Amino acid sequence: MINIGLLGCGTVGSGVVKILEKNKTDIAKKTGSEIRIRQVLEKDPDKCYKIGLQSDQVTSHFENIINDDAIDIVVELIGGIEPACSFIIEAMKKGKHVVTANKDLIAVKGQELFATAEENNVDFYFEASVAGGIPIIYPLKQSLAANQIQEVIGILNGTTNYILSKMTREGRDYEEVLREAQELGYAESDPGADVEGLDAARKIAILSSIAFNSRVTLDDVYVEGITAITLRDIQYAKELGYVVKLLAIAKEVEGKIQARVHPAFIPLSHPLAFVNDVYNAVFVNGDAVGEIMHYGRGAGEMPTASAVAGDIIEIGRNMHYHSNARIGCTCFKEKGILNISELNAKYYIRMTVKDRPGVLAGIAGVFGNNNVSIAQVLQKTNNQEMAELIMITHTVREKDLQDALTVLKGMSIVFAVNNVIRLEGIDRDNG
Amino acid sequence: MINIGLLGCGTVGSGVVKILEKNKTDIAKKTGSEIRIRQVLEKDPDKCYKIGLQSDQVTSHFENIINDDAIDIVVELIGGIEPACSFIIEAMKKGKHVVTANKDLIAVKGQELFATAEENNVDFYFEASVAGGIPIIYPLKQSLAANQIQEVIGILNGTTNYILSKMTREGRDYEEVLREAQELGYAESDPGADVEGLDAARKIAILSSIAFNSRVTLDDVYVEGITAITLRDIQYAKELGYVVKLLAIAKEVEGKIQARVHPAFIPLSHPLAFVNDVYNAVFVNGDAVGEIMHYGRGAGEMPTASAVAGDIIEIGRNMHYHSNARIGCTCFKEKGILNISELNAKYYIRMTVKDRPGVLAGIAGVFGNNNVSIAQVLQKTNNQEMAELIMITHTVREKDLQDALTVLKGMSIVFAVNNVIRLEGIDRDNG
Ligand SMILES: NC(=O)c1ccc[n+]([C@@H]2O[C@H](COP(=O)([O-])OP(=O)(O)OC[C@H]3O[C@@H](n4cnc5c(N)ncnc54)[C@H](OP(=O)(O)O)[C@@H]3O)[C@@H](O)[C@H]2O)c1
Ligand SMILES: NC(=O)c1ccc[n+]([C@@H]2O[C@H](COP(=O)([O-])OP(=O)(O)OC[C@H]3O[C@@H](n4cnc5c(N)ncnc54)[C@H](OP(=O)(O)O)[C@@H]3O)[C@@H](O)[C@H]2O)c1
Repeated sequence: MINIGLLGCGTVGSGVVKILEKNKTDIAKKTGSEIRIRQVLEKDPDKCYKIGLQSDQVTSHFENIINDDAIDIVVELIGGIEPACSFIIEAMKKGKHVVTANKDLIAVKGQELFATAEENNVDFYFEASVAGGIPIIYPLKQSLAANQIQEVIGILNGTTNYILSKMTREGRDYEEVLREAQELGYAESDPGADVEGLDAARKIAILSSIAFNSRVTLDDVYVEGITAITLRDIQYAKELGYVVKLLAIAKEVEGKIQARVHPAFIPLSHPLAFVNDVYNAVFVNGDAVGEIMHYGRGAGEMPTASAVAGDIIEIGRNMHYHSNARIGCTCFKEKGILNISELNAKYYIRMTVKDRPGVLAGIAGVFGNNNVSIAQVLQKTNNQEMAELIMITHTVREKDLQDALTVLKGMSIVFAVNNVIRLEGIDRDNG
Repeated sequence: MINIGLLGCGTVGSGVVKILEKNKTDIAKKTGSEIRIRQVLEKDPDKCYKIGLQSDQVTSHFENIINDDAIDIVVELIGGIEPACSFIIEAMKKGKHVVTANKDLIAVKGQELFATAEENNVDFYFEASVAGGIPIIYPLKQSLAANQIQEVIGILNGTTNYILSKMTREGRDYEEVLREAQELGYAESDPGADVEGLDAARKIAILSSIAFNSRVTLDDVYVEGITAITLRDIQYAKELGYVVKLLAIAKEVEGKIQARVHPAFIPLSHPLAFVNDVYNAVFVNGDAVGEIMHYGRGAGEMPTASAVAGDIIEIGRNMHYHSNARIGCTCFKEKGILNISELNAKYYIRMTVKDRPGVLAGIAGVFGNNNVSIAQVLQKTNNQEMAELIMITHTVREKDLQDALTVLKGMSIVFAVNNVIRLEGIDRDNG
């Protein structure tokens, strides 16, 4: 018998209770022991009763979990930094294994949590923290472990992918689609962490740490959200053969790690271009395996519970074979972080400029002086006075581009630099 | 130090030697020990020398591997049933762990191999046997283990997917594209096992055994290849909003397993519709996780070696923690196999019929008498005498359809039933 102490019986917590109950016979066979929910910490006991838990299984005091020696695994699903962090650390110190879905916590306190797990010889598993039900953390540590990973590119936030997919497909505005997503429950009433890219940034911090075997925390990730994306940008993307996605990107470049979240133009031929609505996907490029992609639901009660329960089974097997802690922290290197200004990329630039002879030459001159070479130009006239200028650059350095934009913004012929969006996933070998 | 005895230094074998050498420092960190190729069994020693192996590492006698007590893991990459099967069994009996990529063998002798591994308390890993570098076997046993799997649908053969993709994109004939694939090395000079669906059938036998926890062998799989697919079928598919793929399908229906390989029409909105050229993908539907898909290269030297080396690392970790055999055979149930005649599906039917009044009514009558209801009809006139009739059925029983076709084939108004292709992946909830 393996006893679980569950912290939080909200969306994911109740999913875990349900799946462990529904498939309990098979799960017991796979694990080697029966798995039982022994105690649930929850503020609102009704959430627990509603899904069939008994009153002696529910508590509002963490002490009843931490001091129960029969509890083998603590499953933390309350979310947030505190008290989740202290609860996890206390549990580990008591020799309890820990499963969590808490990306906020791992992206910030990963190092401390892994160190504590290691000191106490316990398992610390967190497959659900990135891309919900999609298996990616474990495969990176295992089936793909022989590879030197070159890049990881994810669509890791369902809310923003839903919004961008809807804008693209239905030609509707950001504000309107966001409101609808909120009504449908696909976006929170305070959507900040999603639309500003923070949620995706936490997840790519976790994935890069595993992929590159070197700690990357939230602060190391450059973040831009989707709030500045307009329908115009999406339409120009389509005109040029791209689609706009909020990407979470991590690459190793000359021994350093580049981790960033921002909207990007990707070619329609890229596997990530087909990932729509609330679906997530993680695209990985490894030196042996080449390009692979894992796709599925990145959130929701049951998909997230699938990953949490998979971790529980795995820990159960480790208990059975006395092999706990067999896969611990994989950050055995220390690679530097590359600043966004050192990025080499192609860019889409949308500007509003005076519509008169010589303007294009003037703008091109500024780019040229800053080593920014232009690959493609579209000019759209808005009215007699103004033109909209769409430019795609060749590969240039971010710093050079920003320098050029600073100059341009000060010129009287430039009314506005409306948007700058990086291009990603081009020049692939998709043999 | 972990010592490998490698059997076969062909395509995959040399890939394994290369990746273990190239990434050896990181691999040692992840495994907890250095991994060394101690002995290679190979008929042609030059294949070994060419990739840097020394003459004392190469042998043409299996005895030198089986009797070397220092060898911990035997990696079987010679392929075929014998002597591979005996070599593996002997190795297990000597307490050696085994990694293989040999789908031919596992699809037929899986039960015996697992039983021998279990008796001897050794690991038996075979991630590379299905979908090359794509992590799927391990994720099914692990991250997805809490799910009741409802279906697994794979594009598991690169050669046929390449041929069908080319035919679709370039509007070229089967024979022509096959010849080109052979010239490019994407198809064997004897392409039988690929184009007749046997290779995919072996792989789906392996995947269904794992997904449904019940042994499925090659003989249990209904198999149809792509040799009857013409450009006409592909064009009609497109006209109707579908694409033709060779699918390997396994479903659990009322406690029984249905395993089949055949060409199928899938809707353009299905995630598998975007899997082109030599790429493979495995689409899984689980009761908790919902729909997920893993995509990547299903064959080739380095992608396949990536999976083999991942298994080696995993066994190395098990050795380090004395937890070998912690994940063994997962076939702890005995589910029956559903015969193809019991399948319920939608069908595309292409017929050549007499072009005169009443013919359609006559044909529709035969279908009606056999409980086959028609959803859609396209009629194309070929010349004054003949018409081509394209029909899509509602969901009907395969047996009823076959009965109707038998009657139709005997009618004077029917010149030929040119092709019958199942529809798959429709009626999905793609929320
Ligand atoms: N939802 C998803 O799709 C998803 C996907 C991936 C990862 N995650 C992660 O999974 C975790 C849980 O998310 P969720 O969506 O399940 O959140 P949730 O629905 O808000 O559930 C959290 C539950 O924990 C309870 N709780 C919070 N603090 C507590 C405390 N100190 N003592 C007792 N009970 C406490 C809450 O009660 P009250 O509501 O009464 O405060 C609530 O019932 C988070 O880390 C989240 O980031 C969620
Ligand atoms: N190639 C792929 O992309 C791929 C993908 C997935 C799985 N696999 C599987 O991986 C396995 C190996 O495939 P492969 O493509 O690497 O085959 P391969 O290139 O033909 O390599 C097999 C090697 O083993 C040698 N060999 C065969 N029998 C031997 C024996 N009794 N003693 C000594 N050496 C022997 C062969 O030598 P000779 O040629 O001199 O006979 C050859 O060098 C097969 O089970 C295959 O199904 C391959």
